Amino acid sequence: MAAVEPLGPELRAALEQTPVAALSGQLRARGLHHMTIDGVRRLRPGERLVGSAKTLRYLPLREDLFDAHGGGMNAQKAAFDSVEPGEVIVIEARGEAGSGTLGDILALRARARGAAGIVTDGGVRDWDAVSAAGIPVYAAGPHPAVLGRKHVPWEADVTIGCGGTAVQPGDVIVGDADGVIVLPRGIAEEVVAAALEKEREDAWIAARVGEGASLDGLFPMSPAWRARFEAEASRAPR
Amino acid sequence: MAAVEPLGPELRAALEQTPVAALSGQLRARGLHHMTIDGVRRLRPGERLVGSAKTLRYLPLREDLFDAHGGGMNAQKAAFDSVEPGEVIVIEARGEAGSGTLGDILALRARARGAAGIVTDGGVRDWDAVSAAGIPVYAAGPHPAVLGRKHVPWEADVTIGCGGTAVQPGDVIVGDADGVIVLPRGIAEEVVAAALEKEREDAWIAARVGEGASLDGLFPMSPAWRARFEAEASRAPR
Amino acid sequence: MAAVEPLGPELRAALEQTPVAALSGQLRARGLHHMTIDGVRRLRPGERLVGSAKTLRYLPLREDLFDAHGGGMNAQKAAFDSVEPGEVIVIEARGEAGSGTLGDILALRARARGAAGIVTDGGVRDWDAVSAAGIPVYAAGPHPAVLGRKHVPWEADVTIGCGGTAVQPGDVIVGDADGVIVLPRGIAEEVVAAALEKEREDAWIAARVGEGASLDGLFPMSPAWRARFEAEASRAPR
Amino acid sequence: MAAVEPLGPELRAALEQTPVAALSGQLRARGLHHMTIDGVRRLRPGERLVGSAKTLRYLPLREDLFDAHGGGMNAQKAAFDSVEPGEVIVIEARGEAGSGTLGDILALRARARGAAGIVTDGGVRDWDAVSAAGIPVYAAGPHPAVLGRKHVPWEADVTIGCGGTAVQPGDVIVGDADGVIVLPRGIAEEVVAAALEKEREDAWIAARVGEGASLDGLFPMSPAWRARFEAEASRAPR
Amino acid sequence: MAAVEPLGPELRAALEQTPVAALSGQLRARGLHHMTIDGVRRLRPGERLVGSAKTLRYLPLREDLFDAHGGGMNAQKAAFDSVEPGEVIVIEARGEAGSGTLGDILALRARARGAAGIVTDGGVRDWDAVSAAGIPVYAAGPHPAVLGRKHVPWEADVTIGCGGTAVQPGDVIVGDADGVIVLPRGIAEEVVAAALEKEREDAWIAARVGEGASLDGLFPMSPAWRARFEAEASRAPR
Amino acid sequence: MAAVEPLGPELRAALEQTPVAALSGQLRARGLHHMTIDGVRRLRPGERLVGSAKTLRYLPLREDLFDAHGGGMNAQKAAFDSVEPGEVIVIEARGEAGSGTLGDILALRARARGAAGIVTDGGVRDWDAVSAAGIPVYAAGPHPAVLGRKHVPWEADVTIGCGGTAVQPGDVIVGDADGVIVLPRGIAEEVVAAALEKEREDAWIAARVGEGASLDGLFPMSPAWRARFEAEASRAPR
Repeated sequence: MAAVEPLGPELRAALEQTPVAALSGQLRARGLHHMTIDGVRRLRPGERLVGSAKTLRYLPLREDLFDAHGGGMNAQKAAFDSVEPGEVIVIEARGEAGSGTLGDILALRARARGAAGIVTDGGVRDWDAVSAAGIPVYAAGPHPAVLGRKHVPWEADVTIGCGGTAVQPGDVIVGDADGVIVLPRGIAEEVVAAALEKEREDAWIAARVGEGASLDGLFPMSPAWRARFEAEASRAPR
Repeated sequence: MAAVEPLGPELRAALEQTPVAALSGQLRARGLHHMTIDGVRRLRPGERLVGSAKTLRYLPLREDLFDAHGGGMNAQKAAFDSVEPGEVIVIEARGEAGSGTLGDILALRARARGAAGIVTDGGVRDWDAVSAAGIPVYAAGPHPAVLGRKHVPWEADVTIGCGGTAVQPGDVIVGDADGVIVLPRGIAEEVVAAALEKEREDAWIAARVGEGASLDGLFPMSPAWRARFEAEASRAPR
Repeated sequence: MAAVEPLGPELRAALEQTPVAALSGQLRARGLHHMTIDGVRRLRPGERLVGSAKTLRYLPLREDLFDAHGGGMNAQKAAFDSVEPGEVIVIEARGEAGSGTLGDILALRARARGAAGIVTDGGVRDWDAVSAAGIPVYAAGPHPAVLGRKHVPWEADVTIGCGGTAVQPGDVIVGDADGVIVLPRGIAEEVVAAALEKEREDAWIAARVGEGASLDGLFPMSPAWRARFEAEASRAPR
Repeated sequence: MAAVEPLGPELRAALEQTPVAALSGQLRARGLHHMTIDGVRRLRPGERLVGSAKTLRYLPLREDLFDAHGGGMNAQKAAFDSVEPGEVIVIEARGEAGSGTLGDILALRARARGAAGIVTDGGVRDWDAVSAAGIPVYAAGPHPAVLGRKHVPWEADVTIGCGGTAVQPGDVIVGDADGVIVLPRGIAEEVVAAALEKEREDAWIAARVGEGASLDGLFPMSPAWRARFEAEASRAPR
Repeated sequence: MAAVEPLGPELRAALEQTPVAALSGQLRARGLHHMTIDGVRRLRPGERLVGSAKTLRYLPLREDLFDAHGGGMNAQKAAFDSVEPGEVIVIEARGEAGSGTLGDILALRARARGAAGIVTDGGVRDWDAVSAAGIPVYAAGPHPAVLGRKHVPWEADVTIGCGGTAVQPGDVIVGDADGVIVLPRGIAEEVVAAALEKEREDAWIAARVGEGASLDGLFPMSPAWRARFEAEASRAPR
Repeated sequence: MAAVEPLGPELRAALEQTPVAALSGQLRARGLHHMTIDGVRRLRPGERLVGSAKTLRYLPLREDLFDAHGGGMNAQKAAFDSVEPGEVIVIEARGEAGSGTLGDILALRARARGAAGIVTDGGVRDWDAVSAAGIPVYAAGPHPAVLGRKHVPWEADVTIGCGGTAVQPGDVIVGDADGVIVLPRGIAEEVVAAALEKEREDAWIAARVGEGASLDGLFPMSPAWRARFEAEASRAPR
């Protein structure tokens, strides 16, 4: 697989201020309706997640495969040990929350490597310590057991399924209170720009609604409201 | 549909101090076992919900129906734009949490109209902004996508199903940490009065239990305990 | 059933500082893979649970059985009324969260008796009051209805199923943010000692990872790392 | 537990010709709404099940309990070995279909003992052979694994939960294409008589509908239709 | 609601020979991805279903609403009593299979009225008798209880949700072994014609595959294969 | 990936007469508890499945990936076009039954190639035609939609998850009425031999049970019964 280029600082800065909901709207406008990683929640409220995907694939537990592939410097540990700064480790765990898919030592290693976050559709072990590790984590829930109760660590850096969508290495991953979304790298700049533009519009509408305006003709905007919006927007600093 | 009368101030005041659990007990004592909206949680801990139902019904997504009914001033927006003070918008979303069923602009509009709250058995978009909108909201969970990913906005002010029960326009809706319950308007006063009476009794029992009393003969009360309760209750200010 | 001996103060003290995750690892190392009570969460973050199991078994609602066994000083109330200091009431509710399986009066009674906690794979009524009752509680979620909406209280002090595992009276129950685990009484001392030993090792590894060490050869430890660990450990106070 | 009296030949004969749906109607008319064993299907179409319950309770797998209680002449084998003629073995398997809860040898033993049938809300191993064993069986589905993959055989002849209802030793068990229902022994005669009476009425209505009659006034019957029904019924042989 | 025109004999004849899979392909080619009624199976193998939808909507059980609307000539019975020849009764039961949503008398009445079939995403009571009633029925499964255990019959001839899609009165309903699909009336002719055309092509491809041809270039067809297909198709009688 | 050797005729012949249940028992005796493909059923009763796995992996639908990988001679069609005689195509569809994962043309192609069967934990399109195609198929259920409604065809001949277990290319796949099981190639001969030996023993026990013997001491066999069994077995032809 070709090397994945890190997110540039401009794109990252733009993503930091773009709501996942706004990105979802722009992706759907481009015909991409299946881009969210569902069934996960973040361990620490308020944390935002932005990075490029480094993928990790687990298989359902099979004892003989676990014996051959589960121990020592397995695919799981190798992935956490080699994650690059700005990457988000995204784990395929088939929504199986009956064991941890990472614990505190791995979370600390990811942070030490400069990783931007971790997303797993399986469980997290050492929930409190992982929450405190200083790296944003989204997961299906807590579980005290280690990986081998339900999974075989298999391979990294391949296309995976996670939370009901597909994730490729290098995809842009963004998370906030609404959930986690996947942006194909090639359209990320365009999508973010359009999302921020739309956010500006929605914020202006929200302000009008806060002042008591009716939704009728305002949301979506009629030509009259749009003219007023554009007049004000052109005067406002960006 | 006949106009729905708003809740009077006395009933509202009584409901504000009645636990949902106590209302549940009284409804069940009257043969009403299916009155809770299950599978929803409130966005902000501590907030209480009291109001009368304004209903909104969504259908499962079907692209041709969405094209005809999903855009512009659709049933969803019209309902949020016309909600009356003291009403709770209750949304039938079939427990489908894979898209938002409202977002921040609609929540702000409901608050601006004086609505008493929102209950949806689907998802909420703009979770953080909706949480901060100043109106109590109960939902199945967050999702960044807009309505049209899973739903067609259809009609308002009809009887709906929500969270496993049926809700009619004008039903009394009450929510706290235990969940959300539906009171038929016609028995609301009677149910609340009985619930408060029972609460007084239970609080007295709880105090005795806190003092170390056994449950035996106390919960439920034997004639001896009841006599003591009634003697004390008659001396206590209400 | 023979009287169940309470946990001694040393075992209890050790359990208070042992993570559930560490206990899970030791149980699995002994071939015990099915010892967690899954699908429950604690009402108050931060609270730890340690005690010996007092079990309580509910049956699915059947109206004739409820009429005969549900009222007065039933199996539920008798169990809460007779729980001994240091015991954890563990309730079989078949994962059915559509009614409470206890409420505030019962929680207060358990606390007054000196119980160490409550675990139910059903719902909790009076969520806020139970949270504030001063006793650790794990449950599937809140529900305002009383027991009889879904359950018949049946019997106490028998082996039960809860959250997907079996629990015997006298089993050791430990809970933290990762979940709740069951230790057979006979191996509890040995398991806890081994878990603490392993925790010491893992904490040392975590410290190295925090300093930037690679996982390779460290987790699990190579002979070289182990030698260093043991040298340092022998110098460290326990 | 007191000996359970077998079903008398008259009651059995009546049950053989009473649809489960008719029994359900009569039980619900008596306030018993939770009497069906749901989530099971019969292995052989056309077979009817009538007998009195002999119960068997499994616990969720826990390896140490299985080691102590799973082998040799365990509770499962002892129950199949001691089932009496006319009894139906009803198994609590918590709806867990990920292993068999009986296989062909046990089914053959039950038939050899004269058992009237088997109901399990878990899996069946040796599906084809059990289907051919000459005894009616209802189960959640097939699975090739033996019991110990998911269950610990625990005890017989106690009240259990099965398929969402409670079953007591000696309860009357009836199954047909609509499912399996539980009749408390003490009201079985009365319920069956009423059900057969109602069936006669429904059959007469069905005949009228077959002739083209409207449901209006017929189902349920108006006084006019009822008069006609009673006149004809009084002439018909029972 | 405007009267719904019956399906003409030509459209009906074409639908009788068009697989649901072929219709699904054509609907998806037109951007309609959510047109199947999922989670239902037919009672009698081999039966085909073709007709126009007459809808019936149930609400979740609420005892007070059932008391007011459940008895006598309720919405359920009125719908079955007034179904027109060629119509398919389609029932919204929210996927709740814990009670029947029709029984044998209603099925017989529908057949007597000339109805073309019944589809319910709830249960069927009197499974054997309904199977034998001479009318195609699709349902979620059998259950012996009558409607009122889980549902309130509410209204007919409105747009409903069923099996995860929306159904409008007059929609074309087609069912076979693959499931049930909904065709908007306005595009039914066009969709059927295109589906039959595609079927002809697929049958020709299947014949080539049966002769041993590779899928490469054949499925989908390369220009060379297509030329051969068209040459043969132009010689074949339709 | 190294070429996978076909099953030899002796192993195949032995597998043809070995029940899946017996194989399950032997695998579990060797510590392999997670080897069944659950949640699938066979399209035609009575058919047995024996072959070596050729794997095929689908991802969750993502429109941009489907556009790039879903059309023409994609991974799905290439796998069906290149399956070797005696192989079983095993498909990872994540248990998603909301679309077909193969249809009749693909099933015919697999049969024409001499494939031994198909197992998918997703849906099957053209259910009747696939049933009639002359090749054993196990699936989660029927669905009329083509693959792209829920899946992206991705790659073949890699290790996959299917029905809750992991499957490697070349694994031995066996299916009967009890379900589908996976045997690692390296232990297949040994497992089959032991399973057949155990079957012989169980058949002898079943015969004794049919004659009225008690399970006590017979199942499992006491030394006395075993002596008798071995004496008879040594006289019997194999």
